[in-house]
Formats: sequence, C-alpha cells, structure tokens
Amino acid sequence: MSTAGFTLGEIAQALQARLDGDPGQVVTGVAPLDTAGPDQISFLTDLRYRDAARASRAGAFLAPSEVNDLPGAVLHCTAPQQALIDLIRLFHPAVPVPSGVDRTAVVAPDARIDPSATVGPLSVIESRAVIGPGVRMHALVYVGPGVQVGEGSVLYQHVTLREGVRLGRRVVVHAGAVLGADGFGFAFDGTAHRKVPQVGGVLIEDDVEVGANTTIDRATFGDTIVRRGSKIDNLVQIGHNVEIGEHSLLIAQVGVSGSSRLGRGVVLAGQVGVADHVTLGDGVVAAAQSGIPSDVAAGTSVFGTPARPLALGRRIAVAQTRLPELLQRVRALERQLEQIATRLGLPVPERADD
Amino acid sequence: MSTAGFTLGEIAQALQARLDGDPGQVVTGVAPLDTAGPDQISFLTDLRYRDAARASRAGAFLAPSEVNDLPGAVLHCTAPQQALIDLIRLFHPAVPVPSGVDRTAVVAPDARIDPSATVGPLSVIESRAVIGPGVRMHALVYVGPGVQVGEGSVLYQHVTLREGVRLGRRVVVHAGAVLGADGFGFAFDGTAHRKVPQVGGVLIEDDVEVGANTTIDRATFGDTIVRRGSKIDNLVQIGHNVEIGEHSLLIAQVGVSGSSRLGRGVVLAGQVGVADHVTLGDGVVAAAQSGIPSDVAAGTSVFGTPARPLALGRRIAVAQTRLPELLQRVRALERQLEQIATRLGLPVPERADD
Amino acid sequence: MSTAGFTLGEIAQALQARLDGDPGQVVTGVAPLDTAGPDQISFLTDLRYRDAARASRAGAFLAPSEVNDLPGAVLHCTAPQQALIDLIRLFHPAVPVPSGVDRTAVVAPDARIDPSATVGPLSVIESRAVIGPGVRMHALVYVGPGVQVGEGSVLYQHVTLREGVRLGRRVVVHAGAVLGADGFGFAFDGTAHRKVPQVGGVLIEDDVEVGANTTIDRATFGDTIVRRGSKIDNLVQIGHNVEIGEHSLLIAQVGVSGSSRLGRGVVLAGQVGVADHVTLGDGVVAAAQSGIPSDVAAGTSVFGTPARPLALGRRIAVAQTRLPELLQRVRALERQLEQIATRLGLPVPERADD
Repeated sequence: MSTAGFTLGEIAQALQARLDGDPGQVVTGVAPLDTAGPDQISFLTDLRYRDAARASRAGAFLAPSEVNDLPGAVLHCTAPQQALIDLIRLFHPAVPVPSGVDRTAVVAPDARIDPSATVGPLSVIESRAVIGPGVRMHALVYVGPGVQVGEGSVLYQHVTLREGVRLGRRVVVHAGAVLGADGFGFAFDGTAHRKVPQVGGVLIEDDVEVGANTTIDRATFGDTIVRRGSKIDNLVQIGHNVEIGEHSLLIAQVGVSGSSRLGRGVVLAGQVGVADHVTLGDGVVAAAQSGIPSDVAAGTSVFGTPARPLALGRRIAVAQTRLPELLQRVRALERQLEQIATRLGLPVPERADD
Repeated sequence: MSTAGFTLGEIAQALQARLDGDPGQVVTGVAPLDTAGPDQISFLTDLRYRDAARASRAGAFLAPSEVNDLPGAVLHCTAPQQALIDLIRLFHPAVPVPSGVDRTAVVAPDARIDPSATVGPLSVIESRAVIGPGVRMHALVYVGPGVQVGEGSVLYQHVTLREGVRLGRRVVVHAGAVLGADGFGFAFDGTAHRKVPQVGGVLIEDDVEVGANTTIDRATFGDTIVRRGSKIDNLVQIGHNVEIGEHSLLIAQVGVSGSSRLGRGVVLAGQVGVADHVTLGDGVVAAAQSGIPSDVAAGTSVFGTPARPLALGRRIAVAQTRLPELLQRVRALERQLEQIATRLGLPVPERADD
Repeated sequence: MSTAGFTLGEIAQALQARLDGDPGQVVTGVAPLDTAGPDQISFLTDLRYRDAARASRAGAFLAPSEVNDLPGAVLHCTAPQQALIDLIRLFHPAVPVPSGVDRTAVVAPDARIDPSATVGPLSVIESRAVIGPGVRMHALVYVGPGVQVGEGSVLYQHVTLREGVRLGRRVVVHAGAVLGADGFGFAFDGTAHRKVPQVGGVLIEDDVEVGANTTIDRATFGDTIVRRGSKIDNLVQIGHNVEIGEHSLLIAQVGVSGSSRLGRGVVLAGQVGVADHVTLGDGVVAAAQSGIPSDVAAGTSVFGTPARPLALGRRIAVAQTRLPELLQRVRALERQLEQIATRLGLPVPERADD
C-alpha cells in the first residue's frame, strides 16, 4: 500500500526534522522497530522502547531530539508522535476517490448531494437529506430523511443514520454504527411497558470519530450530543439525551446511560459504565471496567465498581488481596484476647463461631 | 417535526385531564422543563423536579393532581407519565407510510407479503418468508428463508433475521440487530474445537422491542425465546436456548449466557452478565455491571460480581472503602496485644511481618 | 428442517456406536432429553443429566459406554459429545446452495470469484478481491478492495471486510461483524486528538469463527491476527495489532485492547477485558467479567478485577461477604483492648471514632 520511496532529506523537510545522516539515503516505507528492515524508517516515540530501537534493523529512525545512540540515520523531532502521523501520511497518502453517485445507490429526488461528494454502491439516501462537499459515503450506507452530513465526513459500510441526525464537518463513522435509534424509554402502566416516543435527534459536532458497531441513541426531546473533537471507539453505547464534551475519548465497549453529561477531555477506558443522570466534570479519567454511579468532580481519576478516586481504588484493590489473611488474623486476635480476659478475670466476650 | 398546535381544551379532552387554565390557550409543542417556551407545554412527571417546574418558562404544564403552584396553566392527571406518552403522540403522530414493496427490494417469488406491509429499498426477503399486515420493513433489511414477521412489526435498517426466526405482533427490531446467528457451541476433540450444529430457531413474542446492534442467537435445538412485552436495549447479547420471561427489561450491553432462564418482570441494568444454565426468578432486579453466576430467587435484588443480595452488596461496597484503614487497625491491635502479652508474661504470638 | 428418519442400525453405523436395542427401530429426529418423544433420539453427553435421561420419553439415546439404565434403545459411544455432532449433521445435512453470483450483487470487473462460490443478493465485491472455491457469501455482504476470502468460508449478512483483510479457509463470519475498521489510535497535539493513520490489515487463519456484530480492528502497521481454530463469540472487540493464538475461545462481549497477545488455547469468558500490551500465556483461562491489567503466565486461571489467580480470587470473593461483619469484630476487639489496657494501667491507644 506504500508509494515509492523518499530520501531522508525530503522527509526531514516534510517533517521539519533535524537530520543526523545522509540526506540522499532512500527509504521505501515506515515500520515498527521490530519488523523494519534496512530500507525502511522506524520510530521511537516512547522512550520505554529505547532498547528495542538500539536493536532494530531499520535504516533510519524518527526520534526525540535528545536520542543520539541509534544504529542508523536519525530524524530528530521535538514532537515525535505528531511527526510520526505526518510520516505515515507521507508514505500512505489518502487515495483520491472519484466523486459522484454510484448508479446502484437509491437516492430520493429531493436529497441534496454536493457534486464533490462520493456515494457508494447500494447506499440509500432518503428525502431532504443533505450531503456536504467532499463527503465520502461507502457502500451499503443508510442516510435517513432530513439527515445532514457535513463537509469532508466519511461514512463507512453499513452505517445507519436515522432521521434527526446531523453530523458536522470531518466526522468519521465506522462500519455498522447506528446513530439515531430510539432511546430506551418505557413507562409501566401496571400491565405492560408503554413506549415513550423518542422524538429528539442526534448532533455530532466537527472532527468526531465514531467506532464500528457503536450505537448513539436519539434524544427523547432535543438532542443527544457529541461535542467536537471527541473520539468514540467500537461497540460503545451512548443513551438518549447524553452529552459528551469536547475532545473526550471513549474506549471500546463503554456504556453511558441516558441524560448523563461528560465534560471536556473526559477519558473512559474500556468497558466503563456510567449510570443515568450523572455528571462527569472536565478531565475526569475512569480506569477500565469502572462503574460510575454518581457525579465525579472535574479532574478526578476514578477506578472500580462503584468507582472511587484512583488512589483509594488502588489501595482497596491491594488490600483485597490480603482480605482472606486478614480474616485469619482477626480470628487469632480474638482467641488471644479471650485468653487474656480469662487470665485477668474479665468477662469473656461472646462470639459467633467461624 | 411537530404538527400545528392544539388548544389546552383539546389536549385536556384527549388526555382526560382536568384543566386549571384557559381552554382556548394554544400550545404548539411539548418540551422539557428547562427548554420549553411560553408557546409550549411541559411536564412534571417526577416530583423531584418541582423546583425546575416552578422556574420553567413553559406556557402550560402536565402535572400530578396535587400540584397547583406552577407558573402557567396546568393539566392535572392521575398518571402523568402515561399522559405524557399520549401528549407526545398527539404532537408527533406516526407518519403514515405508503404500503408496497420498493422496486429495488429483492423478494423471493414464494415469499408472502401482506398488501398492507411496506418493504424498503434494497431489502432482501427470502423464500417462504411471511410478512404480516401493516409490517414496516425499512431499507437494507434481511429476512431469511421461512422467517415470519407478525402484524404491525417494524424492522429498522440493516436488521438480519436468519432462517428459523419468528416474530410476533408489534415487535420492533432496531437497526443492525442480528436474530438467529448460530449459538456458540463447540466441542474440543483433542485437536480442535468442532462446531455443534445449531439447528434451532428464535421466537420473539408480541410487543417485544430489540435494540440496535443487539444479538439473539438461535437455539441448538428448539427455540431461544423472548416472551411478550419484554424490552431489550442496544448491544445486548442473548445466547442460545435462553428464555426471557414476559415484561422483562434488559438494559444496554447486558449479556445472558446459553440456556439461562429469566422469569417475568426481570430487570437487568447496564452491562450485567448472567452465566449459563442459570435461573432468575420473577421480578429479579440486578444492579449495573453485576455478574450473576448462579440461580437467584424470585423477587430478589442483587448487586456486585459475584452478585449478592442488594443490601449485603451495598454493605460490602461501603466496607471496602474502609478496607485499607481496617488493615492498619488490625496491625495496631496486634502490636498492642503483643505489649499486653509481654506485660502479663504470656507467650507472644508469632506473626509474619507486614 | 429434518430429513426423513433413520433406523438405529443406520445411525450406529454412521456414528461407529455400539447399539443396545432393535437395529430396525426408526427415529425421525434428534431432540434434548426434556422434549424428545418416542420417535426421536436424545443424548446424554453430561452425566449430571442422568436423572433427566432416565425420565425422558425419547425412543432412543446416545450415551457413554458405561450408561445402561436408560428407558429405551442406547447407542453407546466413547466420545458422546463428538458423536452428537455427527448425529445432528445426519438429521440436518448442510443445504446445498447453487453456486454463482446473484444478478443484484455489485462486483468489480477485476475481482476474482471462483466459479464454485456463491455471492448473495445486494452484496458488494470491490476491485482485486479474491473469493475462493466454495465460498458462500450471503446477502448484503461487503468485501473491500484486495480482500481475500479462502476456500469454503462463509460470510453472513451485513458483514463488512474492509481493505487489507485476508481470511483463510473455512472461516465463518457471522452477521454484522466488522473486520478491518481503523484501530483506535490518536495523539493529542495540545489542542486536539490527531488520528494516527491505521495502515495495517487483519489476518484470520483457517477454521476461525467470528460472532455476530463482533469488531476486529486493522493494525496500525502489520496485521491484527487471529490464529487457526480460534472461535470468537458475538459483540467481541479486538483492538489493533492484537494476536490471538490457535484454538482460543473468546466468549461474548469480551474486549482485548491494542497490541495484546494471547497464546494457544486461551479461554476468556463473557465480558472479560484485557488491557493493552498484555501477554497471556498458552492455556490462560479468565472467568467472566475479569479485568486483566497485566501479563498472565501460561496455564494460569484468573478471576476478578484486577484479575488474580482463581483460588485467591475465590477466597477474596468469599471473604468479601464477611467484610461488614469483620469491621464490627475489629471494633469489638478495639473496645476490649481498651478495657484491658485501662485495667493494666497501660496507655489507652487513641483512635478515630467510627
């Protein structure tokens, strides 16, 4: 999938990196430290892997400014993780896609599709939908009535955007994701659960990414909202009327229950669950599998079910390991106290048998 | 998405509510307390939000009979949650859909589709399938050989109903749900896992709702069953040969393992897991993220992994918070006992160092 | 779905079983102990169900060699679980499917489809894809550019195989699964999360099964790999650059984070989570809902969050049940010690109030 190679000089210029090596040396691809060969450039973005870098067969390296003991040419960068992104894009440029609507797509006559957009085979675009400039809809995508898809967005295969969904610009929705399914709202009437009609929508702001087979429900009223720059992984569930703040990260299989509000820069690790009507302040971080039953103040890291401040959660986890031993120690203390009480002629406390 | 407005008199009649206000006042929509304006009607269905109601700008309110201090006209109802459902339906009536089979759908010649049913674009209906009166199949739906879909059911986009699936009446299946995939059954033969053929089906009774991207596996023999009136949220997994009793609620990301049986009115909160071959009695309620390894008696509420009766589970959760402190207290007790034993000339207990 | 019946003699021969009964007796189907009737054959593969077998109305039984007290003819087998697979296949043979490409499928001119393969309606096969002999692609499947599908594989409805995915032989991918979505890789540049391009692929070896709505992400570089014979259940998430060893089992809703490596024969029960960059040795078994933050040695069974060796994990779970009582006992000990210290004229330890 790579293009032909680049000289290190060309790469140094593209990445604004300082080259320690031969600017005429050619590399034909980028690869991790353990698999890169002499004709490839590798990267050291995390100093924990310094030994692996020294042992690598790569012909050249992208590395932090202070690293100068690598077995090949080095491109020194102040922000190597960001430079790596540029390096990968250099070798793997986006494949240009011809614009236009595939002849097998089913498009309502009153849908508005920008001429620079691409609509893949067997996709369906319903009445009054608006597809912006440069949008790329892959095959078998469903775009419901009145849905708006902003400039430069990408919809992968089998995506469903039901009526009432609006996407900002440069939004990426991965395969199989469902946006705008009914929120889970029922009221028991004494005999059966009656459905509360879900008449709201879903608003996804600019630069959001939504993972494969993730589900984001429509609001009962108003909108379920994901603010700009947030990234959502695969198989995540976002309930009705939830609001996710800007630049948050929701890792795979997270669930956020209805009407909860996450601040800016919140990070929920894999399989975390958030109860309904909960507020998480800006910058809250939850460790994997945490269960969050109530509000968490801004800047707090939490862990466990129920989630507790990270330091306490870790101390509890450590203490739990000693819990079986602790039971035995308490039993021993009780026996010793009994002896002493007997010796002193004090009443011996009654106690249930273990 | 609203129709034109209604007078409060018209609404009072439709909801059988007692109006305290001007029957000629017109409202044009329904909205929550915090966003409703003077031309809208809002609702107070939970008395915890009474302050929000008093501060609301809404022109009228739906409220319980005893509430009479709201800043606008009030429609008094004995069951405001149920009345709210009727109110929303008044303003957001179901959009009538023309019946008929879209010309891009692929329908087997021997499938039987009721003339009042709707089949959306690019849907596939296989041989011998039966689609009942008033069924609404959206775009890109798959209905397998011999599948039955009962009267008034709704299948959203990208739904898969494989062979052997039968849906009752008024069943709703949300986008991306998969009914009838093979149960997870393998037998290790010493070298490899051999597949146990899964030759059963899936039976969904009347008035069941199945969430987006949820999976309900076919039985090995017989049927995996969801009884009438049960509601299943998004991304839920229901294994082969499971039976879910009537009017149960399974919230998002719940997993129920093979051959387990849930009674009537069971409620499993988000991310709960139920082991295989487990029986949960009628009315069992499991708190979010609980893991249920064995049978639970009817009427029991449980919490935790492994799940314990709710009161115990909560006491454990509280006690855990004090566990690190408890360890220190036991250490202190041991030191004090040592001093006393020394003082009394008793043998000092040996003890591993902390 | 059954064929007409077989005589017990025919079945004994097909299964290489020893028949204790009339070889001319006919059975028309196979069914579990509790539902089988006199014209059906049932099976006892787990001796825990011996009582149910003795009470069964089945006309014949498949059973281990040593069982000889059943109320009907018995086919004795040394490996009854394996024989049951053959028995089910006898009564439910695979339905032959005519090969060929459905006229509504959308196939790139330069895709290579073996003449013995079947391509279902409204499927999409992109440029340079290779579909092997005997492959069965159901309806509405997406096969991306250059994707390879090996001999005898089955792709169910709404499957997505993006570019860079290669499947071995006899791979089964259930409905709605997504293989090859972008790995979740972002680098914060101080203002926003920038996407790390994901330019690797997904390699699925022979005889792997992938469950419904499961997601397996493409690697950043190289491949995300599932080795031969592994079976993955529904709604499982496998992150970028993960490697799953041979003959492993991942039960429903498991999540494996990026770059983790599982050995041979690993078993992860339902809803287990594995952190990133973790190595699980051969034969590791994790109980349901376990959270695995770090490496686990080969052959270890673990339980809990954080996961601990099974025996310790179970002792902790038991001890937790007594934690509220333990707190009270420690409080009692402290009071008694206080009395004794007072009596002995020792200093009374200071203590925070409970």
